[in-house]
Amino acid sequence: RRSHMTVSYTDPQMSMDLLRAVLQPSFNDDIMAVFRKYQKFFEKAAQNVKENVGDDVQTDQLIKDTCRNVLEHAKQLFPEGDVKKSGPEMTIKRSRPIDEDYI
Amino acid sequence: RRSHMTVSYTDPQMSMDLLRAVLQPSFNDDIMAVFRKYQKFFEKAAQNVKENVGDDVQTDQLIKDTCRNVLEHAKQLFPEGDVKKSGPEMTIKRSRPIDEDYI
Repeated sequence: RRSHMTVSYTDPQMSMDLLRAVLQPSFNDDIMAVFRKYQKFFEKAAQNVKENVGDDVQTDQLIKDTCRNVLEHAKQLFPEGDVKKSGPEMTIKRSRPIDEDYI
Repeated sequence: RRSHMTVSYTDPQMSMDLLRAVLQPSFNDDIMAVFRKYQKFFEKAAQNVKENVGDDVQTDQLIKDTCRNVLEHAKQLFPEGDVKKSGPEMTIKRSRPIDEDYI
């Protein structure tokens, strides 16, 4: 059981993720508060979709899918491999914009 | 080229995603404001990591990775396939501590 708990405290990602895990509940509250601002738009849109497409549309699920998509797209605020100031080598493996293959 | 622009306005996901795309910039502003609240923690942690691990640690990148992870984990606020069919509202069920299965 003990080995299960062993983590490397010198692994940078792991260290940062321990902090992330601690902050996540608070983050989630804040992010949820943001989503509440937009909830009425999503509800209205989902209701429209349901009226246009049919009653088998699950508006709940549609809204949740959309919320997850919002979060996915928000990742572009923190682009990967955007090596700006630190480090001598420029490993810019700029991944393509998330969106291109989406729509 | 025109066919490239053709979208089905009766596709539920597509309709919702058009709305998402419209709201995304505003969402991003709000989400960025949330992250600013926590930035000092991330910076401190990344700095610690750099001191412990070595100068080749790119704190910028480490922080961005962590921010993307926060967003990824926040998706659990909107679980997939949670088919409860409970009316038009986003069921804001305060989920259990997100991390249980992570560490």
